[in-house]
Amino acid sequence: MGRVGKMITSTANAQVKQLIQLHKKAKIRNAQDVFVVEGMKMFREAPRDRIAKAYVSSSFYEEAERRTLLEGLSYEVVEDQVFRAMSDTQTPQGVLCILRQYHYGLEELLGKTGSPKSGEPNPLLLVLENLQDPGNLGTILRTAEGAGVTGVILNRGSVDIYNPKTIRSTMGSIYRVPFLYAEDLQEILGMLRQRGIRSFAAHLKGADFYDQENYQGGTAFLIGNESNGLSQELSDFADAYIRIPMEGQLESLNAAVSAAILMYEAYRQRR
Amino acid sequence: MGRVGKMITSTANAQVKQLIQLHKKAKIRNAQDVFVVEGMKMFREAPRDRIAKAYVSSSFYEEAERRTLLEGLSYEVVEDQVFRAMSDTQTPQGVLCILRQYHYGLEELLGKTGSPKSGEPNPLLLVLENLQDPGNLGTILRTAEGAGVTGVILNRGSVDIYNPKTIRSTMGSIYRVPFLYAEDLQEILGMLRQRGIRSFAAHLKGADFYDQENYQGGTAFLIGNESNGLSQELSDFADAYIRIPMEGQLESLNAAVSAAILMYEAYRQRR
Repeated sequence: MGRVGKMITSTANAQVKQLIQLHKKAKIRNAQDVFVVEGMKMFREAPRDRIAKAYVSSSFYEEAERRTLLEGLSYEVVEDQVFRAMSDTQTPQGVLCILRQYHYGLEELLGKTGSPKSGEPNPLLLVLENLQDPGNLGTILRTAEGAGVTGVILNRGSVDIYNPKTIRSTMGSIYRVPFLYAEDLQEILGMLRQRGIRSFAAHLKGADFYDQENYQGGTAFLIGNESNGLSQELSDFADAYIRIPMEGQLESLNAAVSAAILMYEAYRQRR
Repeated sequence: MGRVGKMITSTANAQVKQLIQLHKKAKIRNAQDVFVVEGMKMFREAPRDRIAKAYVSSSFYEEAERRTLLEGLSYEVVEDQVFRAMSDTQTPQGVLCILRQYHYGLEELLGKTGSPKSGEPNPLLLVLENLQDPGNLGTILRTAEGAGVTGVILNRGSVDIYNPKTIRSTMGSIYRVPFLYAEDLQEILGMLRQRGIRSFAAHLKGADFYDQENYQGGTAFLIGNESNGLSQELSDFADAYIRIPMEGQLESLNAAVSAAILMYEAYRQRR
């Protein structure tokens, strides 16, 4: 464990093969209940107690200052060119980690940390239906942290949040924004309604502009698929439709942009 | 020209080779003063008088309804598997076009079409410094159209707006949002100031929140590089610093998201 004498020197090594599979396949990640993060920023910000194993390149390991970051962790040193094969990025930074997946409950998404102003829980949620683009999802999580979103709920038809591209795009928010995958979003909306949380469907047919509604109370924004928007079934379950107005001849905005505009309007009203 | 009898059947064809180079290299695009768009949406929305040449796959050409879209255009039919080699996408839609590049003047960017409300020109500009990610730039252009931005100014250190990934991400806004590359952004800010346009630098050190300023008059937002933000030199030239507040431990927002939040705040105030 972490001795240079035992450096991994072959891409045929079982751990190397395993890691490449973890990058590629959500099924394997879920079966093992883990995910992979790469690069210095993601390594530094990772909760230590969640790191199952770290892998560093031999170049990384040679620098004493970086080596101290490995103290107390289970890790392996990997020859540089083998590390490149293990990496999911074009320019590997010499460190990646296997982390244990998160398992939040709904109550944790409702904001036990409270709103910035009052310290009282004031849920601000995103509900994502069939979101497909990994980069969009990562950007949404990143923006969600910035806007003080208390939780993100996805349906099973959405892209895997542990996709390497998603993880990269979160810029570390994956560690800090509670999320969960739900079997049935309609059921979730019912549960939110019982807790006094109003749900708003971002919809091209919305009668009201998004900035004409009040989001100071418990709020959930529903965002749909990049190409097709929200399903009619789920939209019908929302408390209100809202529309982001558009000039020009556009058919729609990017999903991460739409989500950002809504989240930051809520945050503006709540400040 | 456009006769099936003269179908292009080899990837060794000079036009095929040429097109692949046009996808890849900004230098070649600029030397020939053209750019390439792909797919049905981009083809349908392309200004007809700007299309220098269209290329369609043989499958595309077989459908009579689609063939009518080619009327009046100079085009070539390309065997399906050769078309796949010409395409920059994973799932080619069977049509791509070479278009003549745009050459807007600064006055065109200041909104001759006028603001939604008054019909009077009311410039809303984005100034992008060293923006690097092609997808970000495309998403910014798309959002700019939606928010009624009158023009986008980039420095030469920014990614090429005719990059295939950028074009795709614009979802057609490339045809409708005026833009130009400037040698010297400081000079541009001086010219904007002379026309009474206020410039706002999106900056982590901004004292004022972005929603505390008034954007109802002529407005230019300065957005910097994804990793390093705006240069100090350019920021110093702005009329004011503004800051987008963030909860949590984030260092920054995605550049396209930051731009979207600012543009839509201006649009909200102007409606």
